[in-house]
Amino acid sequence: MSYTAPLKDMLFNIEHLARIDQIAQIPGFEDAGLETAQAVLEECGKLNRDVIAPLNWEGDKNPSFHNGSGVTTTPGFKEAYKQFTEGGWQSLQHPAEFGGQGLPKTIGAACGEMLNSANMSFALCPMLTDGAIEALLTAGSDELKSTYLEKLISGEWTGTMNLTEPQAGSDLAAVRTRAEPQPDGTFKVFGTKIYITYGEHDMADNIIHLVLARVQGAPEGVKGISLFVVPKFMVKADGSLGDRNDVHCVSIEHKMGIKASPTAVLQFGDHGGATGFLVGQENRGLEYMFIMMNAARYAVGVQGIAIAERSYQRAVQYARDRVQSRPVDGSLPAAGPIIHHPDVRRMLMTMRAYTEGCRAMASTAAAAYDASHHHPDAEVRQQNAAFYEFMVPLVKGYSTEMSLEVTSLGVQVHGGMGFIEETGAAQYYRDAKILTIYEGTTAIQANDLVGRKTARDGGQTAKALAAQVAQTESELLASGNTDAQAVAKRLKAAREAFVDVVEFVAGNTKAHPNDVFAGSVPYLMLAGNLMAGWQLGRALLVALTPEAQAQDAAFMAAKITTARFYADHILSKATGVRDSIVEGAGSVTAMALDAF
Amino acid sequence: MSYTAPLKDMLFNIEHLARIDQIAQIPGFEDAGLETAQAVLEECGKLNRDVIAPLNWEGDKNPSFHNGSGVTTTPGFKEAYKQFTEGGWQSLQHPAEFGGQGLPKTIGAACGEMLNSANMSFALCPMLTDGAIEALLTAGSDELKSTYLEKLISGEWTGTMNLTEPQAGSDLAAVRTRAEPQPDGTFKVFGTKIYITYGEHDMADNIIHLVLARVQGAPEGVKGISLFVVPKFMVKADGSLGDRNDVHCVSIEHKMGIKASPTAVLQFGDHGGATGFLVGQENRGLEYMFIMMNAARYAVGVQGIAIAERSYQRAVQYARDRVQSRPVDGSLPAAGPIIHHPDVRRMLMTMRAYTEGCRAMASTAAAAYDASHHHPDAEVRQQNAAFYEFMVPLVKGYSTEMSLEVTSLGVQVHGGMGFIEETGAAQYYRDAKILTIYEGTTAIQANDLVGRKTARDGGQTAKALAAQVAQTESELLASGNTDAQAVAKRLKAAREAFVDVVEFVAGNTKAHPNDVFAGSVPYLMLAGNLMAGWQLGRALLVALTPEAQAQDAAFMAAKITTARFYADHILSKATGVRDSIVEGAGSVTAMALDAF
Repeated sequence: MSYTAPLKDMLFNIEHLARIDQIAQIPGFEDAGLETAQAVLEECGKLNRDVIAPLNWEGDKNPSFHNGSGVTTTPGFKEAYKQFTEGGWQSLQHPAEFGGQGLPKTIGAACGEMLNSANMSFALCPMLTDGAIEALLTAGSDELKSTYLEKLISGEWTGTMNLTEPQAGSDLAAVRTRAEPQPDGTFKVFGTKIYITYGEHDMADNIIHLVLARVQGAPEGVKGISLFVVPKFMVKADGSLGDRNDVHCVSIEHKMGIKASPTAVLQFGDHGGATGFLVGQENRGLEYMFIMMNAARYAVGVQGIAIAERSYQRAVQYARDRVQSRPVDGSLPAAGPIIHHPDVRRMLMTMRAYTEGCRAMASTAAAAYDASHHHPDAEVRQQNAAFYEFMVPLVKGYSTEMSLEVTSLGVQVHGGMGFIEETGAAQYYRDAKILTIYEGTTAIQANDLVGRKTARDGGQTAKALAAQVAQTESELLASGNTDAQAVAKRLKAAREAFVDVVEFVAGNTKAHPNDVFAGSVPYLMLAGNLMAGWQLGRALLVALTPEAQAQDAAFMAAKITTARFYADHILSKATGVRDSIVEGAGSVTAMALDAF
Repeated sequence: MSYTAPLKDMLFNIEHLARIDQIAQIPGFEDAGLETAQAVLEECGKLNRDVIAPLNWEGDKNPSFHNGSGVTTTPGFKEAYKQFTEGGWQSLQHPAEFGGQGLPKTIGAACGEMLNSANMSFALCPMLTDGAIEALLTAGSDELKSTYLEKLISGEWTGTMNLTEPQAGSDLAAVRTRAEPQPDGTFKVFGTKIYITYGEHDMADNIIHLVLARVQGAPEGVKGISLFVVPKFMVKADGSLGDRNDVHCVSIEHKMGIKASPTAVLQFGDHGGATGFLVGQENRGLEYMFIMMNAARYAVGVQGIAIAERSYQRAVQYARDRVQSRPVDGSLPAAGPIIHHPDVRRMLMTMRAYTEGCRAMASTAAAAYDASHHHPDAEVRQQNAAFYEFMVPLVKGYSTEMSLEVTSLGVQVHGGMGFIEETGAAQYYRDAKILTIYEGTTAIQANDLVGRKTARDGGQTAKALAAQVAQTESELLASGNTDAQAVAKRLKAAREAFVDVVEFVAGNTKAHPNDVFAGSVPYLMLAGNLMAGWQLGRALLVALTPEAQAQDAAFMAAKITTARFYADHILSKATGVRDSIVEGAGSVTAMALDAF
């Protein structure tokens, strides 16, 4: 059940697609060049291979459980978490001002992928802490920052996001948890929150809950929601822990996957009120939460890539080992390893192409994030922000949807063995299914893509991206290479399909919302397909250069083949999806409600 | 967690697509008209709703387990099985000569769907018994028939299929279990069989194992495999049970799904040899097994339809109940049930269209089976056999692959609740994954489709089917109905894509096997997509008739919408798949083996 970080592919993306050399020219990132990336990724790969990955199956067999008063995590998790934080891995992307290492997301995202490949259940704890850090950095007062940030960034304490309530899932307007102002400026928080990842556990001394609630008298709907810090233990002025706060985990869920990650039901205020501290201004909670969520959505997209990679590695190993039947082309004298069978190759290539395509997409998006936050030129920041914002729903939605297909193929490659839990392939299939749901379902990502990212600017950002894709097509055609030209052909068809859909979306969202939202998820899938394919097209161009060939000819040959496979077998889906969206909206909503 | 049999849809198919009126003209089926079908299906629906379905979630929570000496099944299974057999449900399709009811497959398949919707784990036991009955009817001696058939057909005893060994999965040539001839004409069987469904359980008094083994001195490979009956308890001359035979269950598997169905490791001959009785002639075992397997493959396809139906019903219920967010078209004044959201409708329609399409395909295939076995005219029998044979890998492969997508959407409709086991949607997702694996993986079905069903006759059967599809297109176009014309357009594109692929397959299987088998599964998916879409096109034509409209206008309106949706959103995938197969073979196998 080993995991080896795909360092070569990650570094290829970081060097050639994310262009770390350009990021290293941004003030503050001077030390974050390719060498740093390589050193960090190598260390990270070792930790994940040796310490975190071996606990993954253990977590499935021995899930975290509610012990009556709290939650006991899977054996080994506490110790591994200690090693993780002592190695400074929680602090990677956070500001030096609060003890962080201040590395760019371009590097951090690759480390995040490794951690999630190694152990998705484990990785959720640091991921949620990252979210809490982000919220406090964005909107926390100096006092909140000084009280919480260092301990969160070191990993000594962990964080959570408390959004969902039984009646308020995708629809946060329905949040009912209430906060009563107190004379000392704090609030008493009352309510029930569900699906709280690592809402209770035994890996850290304190848990800092970020909680959406309504201050008494606040407006109805999303405009009356505020954000609060509710620590599990109160923090004294000297930073030491004080009284237990009135927030308690009453149960954890029995889930299909990520079983080691405790998903808590938290009860706030059953014993007089949980003390909460307002983050930023009243009634702006959703806005702050969305900042956290954007980061979390990107991170969940990376989880999709991560679980796909792990599933791929296991499938390849099995396909090399398992001997069954003679190859159809007679290339072996007798039965051979199943990796010789064309259909097994098709499955492995599909898994690989999806994974590499999404990784390349996520890596370029991370670079845009870094430039959008740190570049000295405001116009460059703005351009990169537009790119990043467009990519977030694709990284989240497409990478997680593809992870369902990849982990299913991962089981399939194993045949009957895949259905036996001890083999391990089934765990990835079960784990992956949460990814298209949490931090906003695929439909919620698609709403974002349609509404804020496409209709709002009349499709301008989308069309600008299409123009960049067209530029890559030209370069591919001009290369004289047959694989490149084949990729260009598929890119062109997919791009044209994409532009048709963008025009359909931009032109109809107001007048015919049902028609547009009937195709919102297919639009997301088409857009993600194109963007991932585009990055593989760019990768192919790099791989053709003499410099790249000299650097690692075998790797570059594999990259070219993967890009070609992606184009022939995945990008080729795009035109059908276009028809489905542009010509098929009517039949989505035509059925009478009582006929279902 | 209720289940209601989709009687209207089943009877629509049986009446209009499978044409039960024609089947009832076949000698022996005189009583098997529409009225019989309706009466049987109604009764069957009640049993499954009231008795079998309520045990489904129980089986997931309390799987069958090895108790040290045997297997204890899920609480309630034994009693339910008693009701099932006492109701005569095991005997439905089997010959009256041995106590069966002799009903056509056209009716039996619908009952099989219900049982599997209600409880797939439970349904596997009767399904395997059907297989054993089929094998004995095909090749058993009169003595074997008289000893075993009545008890199997009544359900008093159950049957198993013993093919797989640790080194012999898809590749049965590698079977090592051996059979030593004894002076009395029996054999002593020695070996280990794995993945034996209901290989041990406590629901019946005896278990009749059908076992593939090699007689000493038999040729290598598949031509040296014979088929044996190995009963758990020896049967005395008077039909009563005698000594325990030397076949023992040493363990059962810990699986991702169908947990109540015990998957046994059986040890034959550890205490001197298990007594076995040769079925038919030596070395023809694989041939007999394939007869059983064809029936079993069809039945597994039906399992895919069944689990998709159950998943759909649950998702619809949740979508009606769960209130979240205001519809985008403002059609409700406030938040409403999520079934009002276009993307939820898209998911439900996708689930429904796949399920109805595959059900229609399976129903027509069942009618062909009945005609191929029982029609008095040899030419009619032959034509129907060719149709049925072509459809078996599609019913199996396409219906099970679609069930993965449908059950995944079934979880997705539930949002976070879908990932919580108690909700029940996750069980279908886990259960479904075995369907693309057992009784031959999708790749094995695709090999069959390519080799025996397409290349062998130069694509003639496939092209004859395409001509029939074209005929339906003409009728749709001539109807003057816009939905019909839209469906015709998509059918035409899919049919042309199909014919291109058939020509590619027929023309290249010998000369370029790798290229053809690189696209074998996509070919299967394309063919299944077309055939299911074709049947929905035929259904649409029926639904447009004044007679049908008069019969049930609301049902017919829903059928038309479903057919239209299928065409717009599922058939529209066909052209991309064609490109992938015909133009993309090279990139499937181009990757250097050590680059994976």
